Amino acid sequence: MATLLVRCRSALRAEVTLVCSRTMASKTPVGFIGLGNMGNPMAKNLLKHGYPVIAYDVFPNICKEFQDTGAQIMESPADVADKADRIITMLPSIPNAEEVYTGPNGILKLVKKGSLLIDSSTIGPAVSKELAKECEKMGAVFMDAPVSGGVGAARAGNLTFMVGGVEQEFAAAKELLTCMGSNVVYCGEVGTGQAAKVCNNMLLAITMIGTAEAMNLGIRLGLDPKLLAQILNMSSGRCWSSDTYNPVPGVMEGVPSANNYQGGFGTTLMTKDLGLAQYSATDTKTPIPLGSLSHQIYRMMCAKGYAKKDFSSVFQFLREEENL
Amino acid sequence: MATLLVRCRSALRAEVTLVCSRTMASKTPVGFIGLGNMGNPMAKNLLKHGYPVIAYDVFPNICKEFQDTGAQIMESPADVADKADRIITMLPSIPNAEEVYTGPNGILKLVKKGSLLIDSSTIGPAVSKELAKECEKMGAVFMDAPVSGGVGAARAGNLTFMVGGVEQEFAAAKELLTCMGSNVVYCGEVGTGQAAKVCNNMLLAITMIGTAEAMNLGIRLGLDPKLLAQILNMSSGRCWSSDTYNPVPGVMEGVPSANNYQGGFGTTLMTKDLGLAQYSATDTKTPIPLGSLSHQIYRMMCAKGYAKKDFSSVFQFLREEENL
Amino acid sequence: MATLLVRCRSALRAEVTLVCSRTMASKTPVGFIGLGNMGNPMAKNLLKHGYPVIAYDVFPNICKEFQDTGAQIMESPADVADKADRIITMLPSIPNAEEVYTGPNGILKLVKKGSLLIDSSTIGPAVSKELAKECEKMGAVFMDAPVSGGVGAARAGNLTFMVGGVEQEFAAAKELLTCMGSNVVYCGEVGTGQAAKVCNNMLLAITMIGTAEAMNLGIRLGLDPKLLAQILNMSSGRCWSSDTYNPVPGVMEGVPSANNYQGGFGTTLMTKDLGLAQYSATDTKTPIPLGSLSHQIYRMMCAKGYAKKDFSSVFQFLREEENL
Amino acid sequence: MATLLVRCRSALRAEVTLVCSRTMASKTPVGFIGLGNMGNPMAKNLLKHGYPVIAYDVFPNICKEFQDTGAQIMESPADVADKADRIITMLPSIPNAEEVYTGPNGILKLVKKGSLLIDSSTIGPAVSKELAKECEKMGAVFMDAPVSGGVGAARAGNLTFMVGGVEQEFAAAKELLTCMGSNVVYCGEVGTGQAAKVCNNMLLAITMIGTAEAMNLGIRLGLDPKLLAQILNMSSGRCWSSDTYNPVPGVMEGVPSANNYQGGFGTTLMTKDLGLAQYSATDTKTPIPLGSLSHQIYRMMCAKGYAKKDFSSVFQFLREEENL
Repeated sequence: MATLLVRCRSALRAEVTLVCSRTMASKTPVGFIGLGNMGNPMAKNLLKHGYPVIAYDVFPNICKEFQDTGAQIMESPADVADKADRIITMLPSIPNAEEVYTGPNGILKLVKKGSLLIDSSTIGPAVSKELAKECEKMGAVFMDAPVSGGVGAARAGNLTFMVGGVEQEFAAAKELLTCMGSNVVYCGEVGTGQAAKVCNNMLLAITMIGTAEAMNLGIRLGLDPKLLAQILNMSSGRCWSSDTYNPVPGVMEGVPSANNYQGGFGTTLMTKDLGLAQYSATDTKTPIPLGSLSHQIYRMMCAKGYAKKDFSSVFQFLREEENL
Repeated sequence: MATLLVRCRSALRAEVTLVCSRTMASKTPVGFIGLGNMGNPMAKNLLKHGYPVIAYDVFPNICKEFQDTGAQIMESPADVADKADRIITMLPSIPNAEEVYTGPNGILKLVKKGSLLIDSSTIGPAVSKELAKECEKMGAVFMDAPVSGGVGAARAGNLTFMVGGVEQEFAAAKELLTCMGSNVVYCGEVGTGQAAKVCNNMLLAITMIGTAEAMNLGIRLGLDPKLLAQILNMSSGRCWSSDTYNPVPGVMEGVPSANNYQGGFGTTLMTKDLGLAQYSATDTKTPIPLGSLSHQIYRMMCAKGYAKKDFSSVFQFLREEENL
Repeated sequence: MATLLVRCRSALRAEVTLVCSRTMASKTPVGFIGLGNMGNPMAKNLLKHGYPVIAYDVFPNICKEFQDTGAQIMESPADVADKADRIITMLPSIPNAEEVYTGPNGILKLVKKGSLLIDSSTIGPAVSKELAKECEKMGAVFMDAPVSGGVGAARAGNLTFMVGGVEQEFAAAKELLTCMGSNVVYCGEVGTGQAAKVCNNMLLAITMIGTAEAMNLGIRLGLDPKLLAQILNMSSGRCWSSDTYNPVPGVMEGVPSANNYQGGFGTTLMTKDLGLAQYSATDTKTPIPLGSLSHQIYRMMCAKGYAKKDFSSVFQFLREEENL
Repeated sequence: MATLLVRCRSALRAEVTLVCSRTMASKTPVGFIGLGNMGNPMAKNLLKHGYPVIAYDVFPNICKEFQDTGAQIMESPADVADKADRIITMLPSIPNAEEVYTGPNGILKLVKKGSLLIDSSTIGPAVSKELAKECEKMGAVFMDAPVSGGVGAARAGNLTFMVGGVEQEFAAAKELLTCMGSNVVYCGEVGTGQAAKVCNNMLLAITMIGTAEAMNLGIRLGLDPKLLAQILNMSSGRCWSSDTYNPVPGVMEGVPSANNYQGGFGTTLMTKDLGLAQYSATDTKTPIPLGSLSHQIYRMMCAKGYAKKDFSSVFQFLREEENL
């Protein structure tokens, strides 16, 4: 099925054999590029599931450390593409992703026709679509598969993947992604995985700031924080930010607000994702008044000492008392 | 004086005969002022529970109609206060509430010492506190008890009441409120019931607009609305507005978005509540950037034909397509 | 003319004589309540113009100090009203103004019929209208006359007064106000002086934050600040905040930005005025998206160490660099 | 390579014959690409100043019409570059500009070494810098020179040009630009012309919406619009939007608000420029809370029938009355 698709696309009969080898034989090597906080445990989970991993990271010491897992380390993304026809990439930013795919030693320099390239970076739908076009030119298939869930979920292998790309390739992608995640959702054509991620995180930022505003206002009006959280959580104001990740210290255990906003999802990362939402909204001429203002608020927080704190620290940012 | 009274009552001292008669004997008449969409079914539920109701509304035809229920109709709030020492008020706005309590023929003209006055209007903490002070001057006890839940919940008798006022009086208030609601929450001193209501509704407005923005952006980026709602609802963007009251037509049954935004909670009412949040925030010097912007968005919607539509119609407001 | 008006209003013939004495004889004593940073030099300018001043301030030491100017000091606003039938008030907040007019020892306790009460405090149109009603009940005339211009202008006697109230009384008010200001503008009925002040300051806040955003963005995009200011000032972005009070250090001399944002118009005061704009907008159901957001931004600044700095320090607030 | 070129040229070294011929001989042909509302009168002004014009537009009928002016019409941007070593481009959007420069028949296909390419499109600093890099690779010099002033100013030849690029080339650019504008400002390195334009227009949008909010609020509070405009214009709220282009009908003559918001600078164009500001701010991590919200407001206006009206119609958008 996938074979047929690829054949059609490239209209070249000869490559079919190669493609078949990719999609049908499992346990052939899988490439993995980007071995950071998220990529490292993800790649290890592939190894655990019996896939030989051919890896690359831009930092040599990270590569060296990873070598002990039994993975084969390459000199460049191009070299990975030369050895593996299924590659997963997990990169921190748009420029990194562009470099890894289209740079001088990028994947596309040596990619094999029919290769399946799965990008789990969060880079927004527009760039994903551009990368997909470049891959298609080389006869390779690109899918976007950003994740939800943090380092803990990456280690436990229960990430959620939101996948965009040609539907016929989804089964092939899912085979690998289920090694790393418990939930693999097909979202639609290329870029829709990114779209889902970006929309969710924008709404998350809005509900978090909204929860912080409502809790702060209620406290100043004389309400007990725990009681107010209870009321919100049984009422129409209920949201994940209020019932699962409450930003007010003392309301819940085991969340960043209980630990001086250490750990969790950093303000810088949220700001980055809101930038992607902003780009997507401008591109599609979609009004996002609250999303846009949330972006600005997190932007200001980054400059005021909150960059590395969990994004729920917006409560602290808003709470600071006026001086007399 | 009021302080003394409360102390007496809670300590069950012998001298406060009048007060005791009010709090201990049930089924003595209960006053009810404001027989509108909400007040009407609420008062009927009191009748159903065997309480004689002594009622008043500013509109004579509404009074006449209500007379058929067996309630006794008075000429003014003052007259109600003359006949009943427990009174519930349910009024649409601050000026109405002020008129009913402190106007020339208001409750306080003829209120009996030790009377229990429960206001279920949504008028914000500041005005509630002022009314409480005026009532205290006359030796009466004022509690704020705004509701959550609409006309349907009022009819079914399962409203939620958020109650603020002297804790010793809560049991007496609860006796009556449980006839009309399934959930009666004590929030703290006078005004905190209003505070809880205002905070919840502000957060509700924020999450609703946020959901509308996220759904609209996702749809324009190529996602199917039902699928996107599913993804949000199993992710960190989940909120009541996305999982119980989704604003996008076709995503859920039985919500206003499935019925051209008829019924539900009108944009005008939400705008009013956001105005109360705005006042409370300014009074307490609390920053509410998203709450404040939400207020402005609903304000604009009121002027653009959305005044009577359900507040989830913000999706429609944001979705409108640009012309070519 | 004014006499006639007052007569009509009170419909009592006897008081006319007294009123006449007020409006026709100049150089009879003038009351002045509120001798703070602004009130003190204003009252002195009345003295310079030959008006005997009968003064009061809530702080005894301020009163004592002012006594040396030759003014007569009273024990309360009521006592001032007992001695003078023209009174100017200059107070820092709504509660102060309410106390001075309607408090237990307020002006209205002993005010003479036909007195002219001019309030130069900035308290918003709604409260001004309420005070005017209370004054009218006592047969006195209330005018709102908030000022534009700071302490320097108060000393130099070139404040601008925006005056609201009965037009027939304007001449009488102007006689006094011209001793303290170079510009006395009649705005319309009671409350419109406040309205003009509030609208101007809201627009000022918006243009100041806008200028700070544009300058900051331009600088980060590689433009020289002075050059950018020049370009804006000869283009459609020109505004008082860019061409007269530029918020970027190094662009202009003699403004707070050239002096570490010392002096000028404090962030706290701007925040207060934006609160009045917010109230007025909510009361009149007017959407003010940018005004509202500006209020929130200044609110946040107050809590982050900018309370006492000039309001142009919003440039510094926005400029702070992100950490690595 | 490009660096060398520039050095040679500015130092007037003998070896760069080709380059010298371009900069020293005036009245050699000038290329002009983009003959729309703005480009057409601009190109005609070059002709009037005696420059032979070699032109191209994507619409054949526009080319045909322009031929009557005596200009020579080419088949593609590449052909223009083949005939002229000084080219001005005036294009409506980023994709158009990218196509004209780097497309299959773009300028860079046949550009001569040392050519001077001046882009007057408004496309933001980031894209300008990218185009400059591509041009540099081919040995050509790119300068950005966006304009301020509309079609009227283009016809009258008194546009303002904000120019970014290598300083040594500024004189050569100015020689041509002064034929079309009265004001040619050197802003700094490549992209700074765009930066200046984007910053000015963002501030313009903010001051315009702010003026509309302040005027609307004042009117609802009882002020006469003309009087309010006078007060603002002599006070600290003064801005170009209030004193030169007031958005309230009846306040000024000869502006779009006096003509049902016909003509002027369309809401769509302002929205586009705010999108560029948004991109620039996200790229440089600059907080622009008011700029960002202004973008969203104009975005909403585009979808509500204001797309083709002048951007001052935001007053009308905000003013619409609520229904009863």
